[in-house]
Amino acid sequence: MPPLKILIAQGGGPTAVINQSLAGVCLAARHSAAIETVYGARYGVRGILNEDLLDLTSETFTHLESVARSPGAALGSTRDKPDAAYCREMLKVLKAHEISHFYYIGGNDSADTVRIVSEQARASAYPLRCIHIPKTIDNDLVGNDHTPGFPSAARFVVQAFTGAALDNESLPGVYVAVVMGRHAGFLTAASTLARRLPADGPHLIYLPERTFDPERFVADVKAVHERLGRCVVAVSEGVHDAAGVPIVSKLAPTAERDPHGNVQLSGTGALADALCAQIRDRLGIKRVRGETFGYLQRSFAGCVSDVDQREAFEVGERAVRFALSADRDGSVSIKRVGQYAVDYELATLETVAGRTRVMEEHLIDPSGTDVTDAFHAYLQPLLGSGLPEAQRLRAAPVAKRLKR
Amino acid sequence: MPPLKILIAQGGGPTAVINQSLAGVCLAARHSAAIETVYGARYGVRGILNEDLLDLTSETFTHLESVARSPGAALGSTRDKPDAAYCREMLKVLKAHEISHFYYIGGNDSADTVRIVSEQARASAYPLRCIHIPKTIDNDLVGNDHTPGFPSAARFVVQAFTGAALDNESLPGVYVAVVMGRHAGFLTAASTLARRLPADGPHLIYLPERTFDPERFVADVKAVHERLGRCVVAVSEGVHDAAGVPIVSKLAPTAERDPHGNVQLSGTGALADALCAQIRDRLGIKRVRGETFGYLQRSFAGCVSDVDQREAFEVGERAVRFALSADRDGSVSIKRVGQYAVDYELATLETVAGRTRVMEEHLIDPSGTDVTDAFHAYLQPLLGSGLPEAQRLRAAPVAKRLKR
Repeated sequence: MPPLKILIAQGGGPTAVINQSLAGVCLAARHSAAIETVYGARYGVRGILNEDLLDLTSETFTHLESVARSPGAALGSTRDKPDAAYCREMLKVLKAHEISHFYYIGGNDSADTVRIVSEQARASAYPLRCIHIPKTIDNDLVGNDHTPGFPSAARFVVQAFTGAALDNESLPGVYVAVVMGRHAGFLTAASTLARRLPADGPHLIYLPERTFDPERFVADVKAVHERLGRCVVAVSEGVHDAAGVPIVSKLAPTAERDPHGNVQLSGTGALADALCAQIRDRLGIKRVRGETFGYLQRSFAGCVSDVDQREAFEVGERAVRFALSADRDGSVSIKRVGQYAVDYELATLETVAGRTRVMEEHLIDPSGTDVTDAFHAYLQPLLGSGLPEAQRLRAAPVAKRLKR
Repeated sequence: MPPLKILIAQGGGPTAVINQSLAGVCLAARHSAAIETVYGARYGVRGILNEDLLDLTSETFTHLESVARSPGAALGSTRDKPDAAYCREMLKVLKAHEISHFYYIGGNDSADTVRIVSEQARASAYPLRCIHIPKTIDNDLVGNDHTPGFPSAARFVVQAFTGAALDNESLPGVYVAVVMGRHAGFLTAASTLARRLPADGPHLIYLPERTFDPERFVADVKAVHERLGRCVVAVSEGVHDAAGVPIVSKLAPTAERDPHGNVQLSGTGALADALCAQIRDRLGIKRVRGETFGYLQRSFAGCVSDVDQREAFEVGERAVRFALSADRDGSVSIKRVGQYAVDYELATLETVAGRTRVMEEHLIDPSGTDVTDAFHAYLQPLLGSGLPEAQRLRAAPVAKRLKR
């Protein structure tokens, strides 16, 4: 067999560890006698369509490791969702460059692209091994215990709420932070791991797995504020009413829409501001602060779970091993073993492609505004080592001498 | 002399290291044979007024060190700006508890409170040593090279822009992030330390030291976007027009106001959203994302400059030494020695109280949308060790085989 030429691309929203997977593929390819050349496509599938490719073969090992530690998609990414015609054009480029393996790091849309290309290659009898490598901070891939990128984003959310809750204790009021995740609430739920003592925030969480009722929201905040004199709230950007209409488009009708007509959820503070206005207007609480974590959740340099880094690298490595040894295309998936180790399997592309996982019912507290202990057990090992501490004073009050 | 009883309080916005200063005072007091008891006031000066005090003497050394590493104001803070009558009531409480030293950790408003209490104590011949301990993420205290809290907040801004710029390279568009600092642009300017290569973001910064012209802003973004196909912008929350009117109240007239009638700058995404709308509407650029870093800048757990931690502890330690040895009240101030060490002096309270430092002219680039090399030399040593890296691929393009 002649030495192989392989191609890798990155799709969808970048993460803090998506370059680990890129490095994992590159370095596993170097360790394989069968593979000679590694190409990377600029800006995801669009780079394949445009024949905008880089030859990664000359990158040094040391430099690839540095790139792996950097957030963002080093090859560039895309929001393109290729249809059959788009994929046929991609296949022409893959054939022209005699590519033997196509690796695509991304979410369920990217898995669907890999599925289409895989079918087209087989239909045209072109020998192409197609492997999807999982990535998404939303943790919404079916068939995976969790997905690379999620643990680091979850860690960001935990560290953010750890500090925000202490800040809210210092200057009491209501604090509402909007967290990413259009359909799956894992990242919003991660905020609960910032708690240490019973009265710690976040005191309420609102997930896209539950219908959001603005009346109930105001009543919930009122109850916590009356009890503690403060309230910290985590809200998923994807909260919606019973008909599935995003709350941001109901409370802030001027919010931006994307070309598909979907309300823009990220890159705007509209939802947090609208929810704060509800609290301020309805409850008359003075200190109400809204915040939208936004892109920092997936890109903040220096906030990463070491467990996530390692696994993101390994899914890349294992993708190459599967491509060389398996007799079919597929999606690398993460399986949990005990508390805590992981193993990797090659799922069929149909398992993952275009499907969306949401939080399993047993992870959500019956109240709908909290998680269960099972969620804590699920997330804790993913957050990695060296989480910062949040300690309070334990000093005793001084007896009063004046009548005040 | 009988053993002394001292009191400490924390005021204004918390920081990532304000508890270091608290610990610094507590531990220096323990090392002094003259001091026997350390009280802390809950929620700043309000806790003195309300006689809401804690006895910190029984806190363990180990626990105080843990508290020191936690963000937020461990004693609680306040936005109260005491007048003479308020201070007279405070003084009654200080006298009732036979307090010999009053330490107040805070910004220029807190320094002013210390000044008033100091004058009243002297006027009533009550022997009270009053020491202001500097703290502010805005870095706007006169007479200080920099102030504890600023370096850690600056580090957050640098790490945020390092990641945001890589994210923006991955999925090109316009990214506008609003940074804290009502009057002083130091924190916004810190974003420029995220750059590594000439085309790196942030490409434009807008400081409160300069008049903000919305027309010029749109033209600036257009020019960068045409040159690079993307644009990363850092905007101070305090940007204003020639008359000093905040831009947020001009572009987003429905923005919230505080009880003093000032437009609320933090805890809302209004300014970022309004600026993004300008770009979208005027330039027709599709991918425009706005973000407001908000409270994470001062509270994010686990993002701290070790230099800042050390200095914040030391200003607390030195405050106690000054109180015991100096023959007057004052404000502990940080002086830079070479590149890079610091020394501490006891400035008069009048030097600091109620005055606001802004960025010195030689730190701002003539364009008004960038900083000078002098600013980089100023900030770099404050950011601390172990800043995360941001590396790009260096691979060569692959020759095209298809005519595309």
